[in-house]
Formats: sequence, structure tokens, C-alpha cells
Amino acid sequence: MLTVCIRRALTKRSSSLKNKHCSRTRSSSSSTEDPDQFRTLLQLCVDRYYVSPGQVNTELFQRGMCCNYGPLGTELRRNLLDQWWRSVTRSRAQVFGINTNSGLDRTAEGQGPLRIVDYENLKQLLERQELSKEQLIQEAHLLLQRCPSVRTNLLQGALEQFVPTLGVVSRKLPFGLAETGLCLQPAEGSGCPAEVTQTSLVWFCSLHTSSQWLDHWTRQRLKWWRKFALSPSDFSSSEVPPEELEQAASRGVRIMYSFPWGQESLETLWNRGNAELLHTHQGVRSKLQCRDGRKSIPHVVSITGNMDRGMLAFLSNSLQQLKRQDGKQKLLQRKVLKLHPVLAPVKVALDIGKGATMEQRQVCEGLLLEFLEAKISTWPGYLETLTTSLEQLNAKYDEMGVLFTVAIGENTLESGLLQVRSRDTTIKETMHISEVKNFISKYISAADNI
Amino acid sequence: MLTVCIRRALTKRSSSLKNKHCSRTRSSSSSTEDPDQFRTLLQLCVDRYYVSPGQVNTELFQRGMCCNYGPLGTELRRNLLDQWWRSVTRSRAQVFGINTNSGLDRTAEGQGPLRIVDYENLKQLLERQELSKEQLIQEAHLLLQRCPSVRTNLLQGALEQFVPTLGVVSRKLPFGLAETGLCLQPAEGSGCPAEVTQTSLVWFCSLHTSSQWLDHWTRQRLKWWRKFALSPSDFSSSEVPPEELEQAASRGVRIMYSFPWGQESLETLWNRGNAELLHTHQGVRSKLQCRDGRKSIPHVVSITGNMDRGMLAFLSNSLQQLKRQDGKQKLLQRKVLKLHPVLAPVKVALDIGKGATMEQRQVCEGLLLEFLEAKISTWPGYLETLTTSLEQLNAKYDEMGVLFTVAIGENTLESGLLQVRSRDTTIKETMHISEVKNFISKYISAADNI
Repeated sequence: MLTVCIRRALTKRSSSLKNKHCSRTRSSSSSTEDPDQFRTLLQLCVDRYYVSPGQVNTELFQRGMCCNYGPLGTELRRNLLDQWWRSVTRSRAQVFGINTNSGLDRTAEGQGPLRIVDYENLKQLLERQELSKEQLIQEAHLLLQRCPSVRTNLLQGALEQFVPTLGVVSRKLPFGLAETGLCLQPAEGSGCPAEVTQTSLVWFCSLHTSSQWLDHWTRQRLKWWRKFALSPSDFSSSEVPPEELEQAASRGVRIMYSFPWGQESLETLWNRGNAELLHTHQGVRSKLQCRDGRKSIPHVVSITGNMDRGMLAFLSNSLQQLKRQDGKQKLLQRKVLKLHPVLAPVKVALDIGKGATMEQRQVCEGLLLEFLEAKISTWPGYLETLTTSLEQLNAKYDEMGVLFTVAIGENTLESGLLQVRSRDTTIKETMHISEVKNFISKYISAADNI
Repeated sequence: MLTVCIRRALTKRSSSLKNKHCSRTRSSSSSTEDPDQFRTLLQLCVDRYYVSPGQVNTELFQRGMCCNYGPLGTELRRNLLDQWWRSVTRSRAQVFGINTNSGLDRTAEGQGPLRIVDYENLKQLLERQELSKEQLIQEAHLLLQRCPSVRTNLLQGALEQFVPTLGVVSRKLPFGLAETGLCLQPAEGSGCPAEVTQTSLVWFCSLHTSSQWLDHWTRQRLKWWRKFALSPSDFSSSEVPPEELEQAASRGVRIMYSFPWGQESLETLWNRGNAELLHTHQGVRSKLQCRDGRKSIPHVVSITGNMDRGMLAFLSNSLQQLKRQDGKQKLLQRKVLKLHPVLAPVKVALDIGKGATMEQRQVCEGLLLEFLEAKISTWPGYLETLTTSLEQLNAKYDEMGVLFTVAIGENTLESGLLQVRSRDTTIKETMHISEVKNFISKYISAADNI
């Protein structure tokens, strides 16, 4: 909680600073005063290389499904998955990462409804003239039953990997198995099946601690979502009502986000009992017994997230639309994607002020390599040859969510001084070229450790 | 080349140090003196949590396909993919990461042979009594044509994303699109289709530079593979003979690894021309034109890697089997998985010497959290309650490829001193508890920067 408080305080502080000449118009989660807000976000995501254009693709994105992401969306997704992985596998000793097959190696049975079929094989079958209709139907069933099924979640893989992992922990509870990967969601109605980037932690513990663990992980997960939020209160948790509980589950909690069109679930935690685990291992209790005071079959708490919708939530949460008047009393609207420094896909944009020379470009290239070596993701703005005013450039980088813009001016070559503009404060600082890498590195790692 | 030389020299130095009492028996790539070597590796990978047990699974692993990986295999795969991503997207300004859909959003046509079919839908169709055989066949074709196809490579996605990315680079060549992801490999013979973890860099450049770029990327990629190798000469590159060229390609190069059973390809580079790019965009040349001196349709150099086979190569490359005599003149065989420090899935194992007390465990837990915060992946050996000799523990950690073993002794509580054993030198050093984190961090980042 402390960390959330500190961050809130920091956010407030910085926004009160920069809002001197601005009035915030960002609608709060419950209001519907700005119905266009989401359309603005979608357009921004397409324009600024988060999401590839095309109606089919943006619809997938809007539904919280995996779509074609542009360079910035790809990097944001990587950062988000990285943070999830770190927070889950490195939070305690007893969480182990696994990687399970999408279901392709499962033998014969192939329980899922979605199957991968080689169309050529089926074509050949359908072209066999000598078969009667009944024979054809029978052969088609046989062929399909042999086809591998595609996973729709990561839970089953973790349940299967439970036994091989027992050796790692000498059969001692509790422990968990973490995995991220694509899962297929069966089509709704006549639509196509779509993919989702899923995160999964399957936590094995004793019966009498399972409800406490559910509470523990709910707190942890909510804290995690809020850590990266601009307005943390848009993220909340709520108990699943008894009538909506999944088959095997005795209790469930959802982490919700307030989208402009209503609440949607980002992550779900279930207290699932041990029936599925027993079923997966054909009820052979001796294989499953663990030590936790006394011998018992562990109970399962599953924590399943949808990181595509998570991306949508953070993007939606971080878009600020600010109205302000410029010097000539013209009303400007400034859009800023205030993604958390750790999540922001581009940390620095490198640009050349007016009168670009070959020498300035060389300075940019040197600085770029220096940043990349320090693992600071950098946007090579200097490559763009269209002449744009610095004002327009800043507006563009704000929409991209770029943390800092570094501008190499004409006098950089002589004095070694350059200008560093901050997305969050809009303040421009003059800094020596030898200091800028450390300044940015420190800023990011400080934000990470709050 | 310099980096490879330095690393070679370092490797030689450390192996001459530690081989004082050992004779290396690791067979060189060309020899077949140790036919059991690979069986030993497979068994070790299963025993030490790299690969999940089961014959189907280990066969997938051996074929260079994506299989169920255990905690260590999962971490190794993550490290490898991370390094690939870093080396490709951060090597130069003009490489952008993308994420394309597995093919599920492609409309209607669905060119690929592998389709995802909802078995329930097909069942319903097959059960419709009123249809004649001909109608049934026709309906089945219609259904299958509507089904989404599954990607078998990442190239097609990158070709499609070429146009949306043109804005990023203001139509200026050269630039590249990078992606990693699972791709399905059609079944060989009657087998099942299997997945592969693919890496893909698609490089767009002008016609007259494409062959030079192919050479450039070949050098870069070979250097990358060798950087992490224990014996770099097992990795080589070779021109694809004309009769094996892919349809569209005018030139190809393969990065090969010498497995005990022969050479296999890890990565393939093709000079593909621009026919596929034109075909993907229906031949609309105006959409594709780029600036590179004069206006032209870019040519494509594709660099496609199989990281599952890459893992197999590095594991195979790093297994050293050493015979040595202990004090009592007993012949012991020591197996060490000398994975590169950057790739090694576990950097430190934390263990308690004899006479474990509650206080010692608490020291371990504190140290564990400290390591995890510094992003040093740590094995909680102290959780294991089976009494094992330190000798046996070290043998186990060597097989896991753990870089350092930190042992908390009885006197650690008083003196603050603990023992740090290195996998590569087997030398045990006494160190103060406050120094150990920095020591290990520095070791890893030094290895990263060679």
C-alpha cells in the first residue's frame, strides 16, 4: 500500500506542477462525459504505431484479443509480460516458470473442441469417389479425432506439469507454476476464434490455506496493476457471485478495470479444489500427495490474466487530454500517453533541432548506440527527414508516450550541451551530453523501485 | 571477431586452470568416439528440469521442436529469446519489433494448409441427415474454407506489416521487422504437426545492396551464436547449394551446428527478391515504393531461426564430461553444463551447510530476496530438506549449470562469512555476505559485455 501511496503522491505532485496552465479534462472512470474518448484512443494507437491499421485488427484490439501490434505495441506488450513474469516468479522462492506445448503433443484423445486439421488430407478424403456417404462420415470422424487440439487456457498444462515438478520442491507445499502464452478463445456466435495473450499462475497449497492464498494473490495482483496505473482507482477487485462460479471452483475473485463502456475483467482468481488435478492424473492419489504438516492432495488456486486487455486498460488509463492556451490565445488540445516509465515502449526520442548537419547526425548515432547499450529503448527521430517544428515533434512524442526527447542543437557540437524535455513536466532542461544517459537510466530505475 | 577471440582465450585459460587434475573427455564435433554422449545429455536435461519427462516430449526436444520445458528449460529459452531480441532490435536504429497474429485474423482465403476447425461445428454438419453425399462434401469444403489457417512462419506477417511500418521510417531503406513466436510445422509423413519457436528478422533493402546485407547479417548472426558457445567452432555458416534454394530466393546461407549425429541448420538467411512482397500487396507498386537514392520496390532478406534447436545446440555444446580421481583414487565422472553466464537459467544456488538452523534459513531467505531484487535468478536449495552431502549438491548444481553455489555455514551467523563456489573453476572462495550480490552481478555483466 505504501508504494501505491508514494506513487499517487508523486503523480499528484507532478500533475499539479504541469497543470498550472492547463485544465484537466480527463473524464473520471464513472462519468460518461466524453464518449469520444475511446475513439480518440483507438485512433492514437493506430497513428502512433501501437496497433496496426485495419478494421478487423482494431476490433480485435478493442475486444481485448491479441492483434497485430506495431513496434510500440509490441514493446509495450513485452514490457508488460516482463513485469508480470518478474513479479510472479521472483516474488518468492517457490514459483517456477514452465513452458507447455500448445496441446500439440497430447496423444490421440485431443479433448478440446478446436482442432488443427491439414486441409490437404481432408480434401483427399472428400475426393475419394469409392466411399459411400456413411463411410465418408465415419472416415471424417476418424481423421478429426486424430487431429491435435489447440489449448484454450494454460491451466491444463500446469496441472499436467505438477507431477514432474514435485521433485524440485521435494513434495513440499505451497508452490506455483507460472506461464505466459497464446491461447485460443472459441468463436462467439458465427465469428472466428481469436487468440489471447494469457498469463497463468497455478498455485498448489493445502485445503485449509487455499482461501488465504486466494486473498494473498488477489492483494498482490491488484497491487501490481495499480503500480503501473495513472489513476489506480480504476482498477478494483470483486468477489465472483456464487451463480457465476466456474464448475470446479468454490470461490472466485476478479480484477476489474473501468473502461469508458463499463467494467471488464483483466484477471481472474479461482479456488478450484483438487478435482481437476486428480482427474488430470487419473485419480492416482499416491502420485499427487504432498507434505504440508500431513500428507494431502493439494488444492489449486489459479490466477489467469488477459494481457491484451491489460494493455488496453493501461493505454486507456494513461491517456490524458489537456486543453491549454498558447501564447496567441489559441485553444490547443494536447494528448499525452502517460504510460508508467517502466512500461513506456520508448524511453527517449533523439532529434535534431533546426539546421541539421552531418555532424549532428553523427552525434545522434553515437548517442543512440550508447542508449541501446544501456538497454534504454530509443526512437531514432533524427532519421525522419521531413521538416517538422519542434512543437509538432513534441506533440507526436507525447502521443507516443515517449518519456524524454533529446534535441541535438547546432551548438551541441561546440558546447556539448543538449536539451532534454520531459513528457510529464514538459520542462526542458539543458544538460551535458555526457550526463544524459545516466540521468535517464536513473529516472527509469527509480520509477521501477517506487 | 575480437570478442570471440577474447572469449576463446578466457575459456582456454579457465579450462587449463581447472584441468590440472582432470582429463577432458568431451568429444570434439567431428569425432564419434562417444555415441552415448547425447543420451547422457537427454537424461541430464530431464533429470535437471530442463525438459519434462515422457518419450513423446523428449522426442520433440530432440527433433528441435517446441516441447514441454521444465523450470530451467523455460528460463534458458527466455534468456535465449531475450538475447536474440536485444541483438537484433538494438543493434541498429532501423530494426522494429512487431507482433503479428498467428493468422487467425486473416480474412476468408486462409491460404495455409493447416486450419483450425471447431470440431463441434463439423460434427453438426456430418450429422445432417437431409444432405446428399455431394451436398455434404460441398458444405464441408465451404466450412473449411472459412476456417482460419495457422501460420507456419513469421515471414508472411512481416510482409503484411511492411506498408503500415513505412510511416515509421518515412519510406527510407533499409529497415527491418523483427518478431519471435510459435509457428506450426506441417507433419512429416503420418506424424502430428509440431510447433517451433521461431525468430524472424525481415530486412528490406535495395536490390543492389541485398547481397551485401545477406553477408552482413550472416556475419552478425554467426558471431551471435558463437558468442554464447563453449566451443565456437561447432557453429558454422554455409552457402545453400543452388539446387536447394527456396522458390523465390536467389541466394541462401545456413547457420549450422555440428550435433553428435551430424550437422543441422539453426538459422537460415535468404535473399528473396521482391516477388513475395509484391504478391502480398496485390502488386500495387505505388504502395511499396521506397526511397534509396531512387524510388524502388525493396528487396527482402529473411533471417529465420529455430530457437528450440538453438537451445538443444547450446545444451549439447556446453556439456562437459570430466573424469577425475578423488583423494581415495576412485574414478569419478563429473558432468558440468557450462552454459554461458548470460544464458545459464540459474545463476546462484543458495544452500545451508550441515546443522541447518532456523537462523540460517532466515539468512538464506534474506539473501534470496536480495538476489531476486537484483534480477539474479536464484535456486532455493535450502528448501530441500533431504540431507545430502555438499559433494553431491555440487555435482547436482554442476549438472544444472548453476554458476555459483553459496553455502551458509554455522559460523555465517557470527562472522558474516560464507562460501562461494564457482561452477567453472570449482574453486571455493570465502566472502562476506555483504559482498556476494555485487560480486555475482559484476561477474554476469562482465560476461555479457565481452
